[in-house]
Amino acid sequence: MTYCVAVKVDEGLVFCSDSRTNAGPDMLSSYSKMHRFNPDPERFFVLLSAGNLSTTQAIISHLEKDLDQQSEENLATCSRLTEVAAYIGRITREETDRVQKATASIGVDATVSLIFGGQIGTNSPHELFLIYSAGNFITATEETAFLQIGESKYGKPILDRIITPHTTLGDSARCCLVSMDSTIKSNATVGPPIEILVYQKNSFLNDRYVKIEADDPYLLNIKEAWNEAVKLAFHNLPPFYWEAPPLITDQHQHQQ
Amino acid sequence: MTYCVAVKVDEGLVFCSDSRTNAGPDMLSSYSKMHRFNPDPERFFVLLSAGNLSTTQAIISHLEKDLDQQSEENLATCSRLTEVAAYIGRITREETDRVQKATASIGVDATVSLIFGGQIGTNSPHELFLIYSAGNFITATEETAFLQIGESKYGKPILDRIITPHTTLGDSARCCLVSMDSTIKSNATVGPPIEILVYQKNSFLNDRYVKIEADDPYLLNIKEAWNEAVKLAFHNLPPFYWEAPPLITDQHQHQQ
Repeated sequence: MTYCVAVKVDEGLVFCSDSRTNAGPDMLSSYSKMHRFNPDPERFFVLLSAGNLSTTQAIISHLEKDLDQQSEENLATCSRLTEVAAYIGRITREETDRVQKATASIGVDATVSLIFGGQIGTNSPHELFLIYSAGNFITATEETAFLQIGESKYGKPILDRIITPHTTLGDSARCCLVSMDSTIKSNATVGPPIEILVYQKNSFLNDRYVKIEADDPYLLNIKEAWNEAVKLAFHNLPPFYWEAPPLITDQHQHQQ
Repeated sequence: MTYCVAVKVDEGLVFCSDSRTNAGPDMLSSYSKMHRFNPDPERFFVLLSAGNLSTTQAIISHLEKDLDQQSEENLATCSRLTEVAAYIGRITREETDRVQKATASIGVDATVSLIFGGQIGTNSPHELFLIYSAGNFITATEETAFLQIGESKYGKPILDRIITPHTTLGDSARCCLVSMDSTIKSNATVGPPIEILVYQKNSFLNDRYVKIEADDPYLLNIKEAWNEAVKLAFHNLPPFYWEAPPLITDQHQHQQ
């Protein structure tokens, strides 16, 4: 399984993915699920992938080939982000169909789901899309400022509580990291290294990227700080009616 | 769908269940999923149920009939908790089979899963079991001090972080409430009222019970306090390397 999440806030985008790939519980390996494309200085795209690994690799290699061979439609020619999403959707449908046909007799699930996001030029907004195997897609909005693929349930509550379009990029990235850490803690098919990429709108830069291993001091720091904060938060929640209220030992009252 | 969770700590047991029952997205109703049995003064049992409602009701009514008719085996005669779990397991398998046979032609899923917990006499410990449709069961242990049924993924991370055998009953109950609230927030098939029952070991009492509606002031209070605490916790997490460190404006240094 996989867990990927991406957030769209006013300041930009955050992408976060795990790296565990499994073909059965006894065949675990690590593959990056974060694919970056910077086909010209004012084009910045990121693709996160979940599902069949061979379909994913076929899609990525198809996109790269189209770019190298300067095909009529490629990541450098589409003029709007929705056109790029539709183009990736078409490639996704083609490659899924191809793998599905090849593997039909052995019952392999060839489907994938992708999160695609980025920006083209400073005159257009940064955007985020979830692309399905059939090639159709939805986009993140004001009301739903994050998209998830793969093992998404464990990490959803914290995103539901924190993420709004006005959340800062730093808090959004930390929220993705806590969402990912919660998922890794609760589900053995999602695992490190964790990749995080923060895209500041209009920057077209790739420089705020970290790959975090399980023993990374920053991750351990965040995990410990979060665990402590959550425990503290519990102790400060209001008591139930059957719990003893705090004892008031006002000596003046006792003397009456 | 349903979400039920129960916790076993040194001090006793906590049971928590939602009340939403649906037969398709356009047929929602409320049913209590918490069933209490106090067949004699030193026997206290609770059953939480998820899955097919008609199977659940058949199981409960079978248990009550056995008790009323003083059948050879019933909730008042089993001498150990594992015997009670095995007895409930047998009834569960029988009733599931009966409903499954009756509904096979229309493809209804007749299965259920149950959480069963309680205590028999002060010489035996309080215990918690998860009973499957086939009648087999597992028990909560030191390492895994909570059991969940139904829509369990959203609410698992907070339990994983907080619950140990040494957690107090109050904190355990608040943790179940936050776990339930997170699930309700993230999944439309789980809904209020929320029922919570806290069982203090050796008490055989039923008195720490609340049924919490969506607009209950205590729930709103807990939700708000939790949301605030989580937001505060985020602001106190360590920054990423690309975030500006806090400015130090030490005037003495500036004067050098």
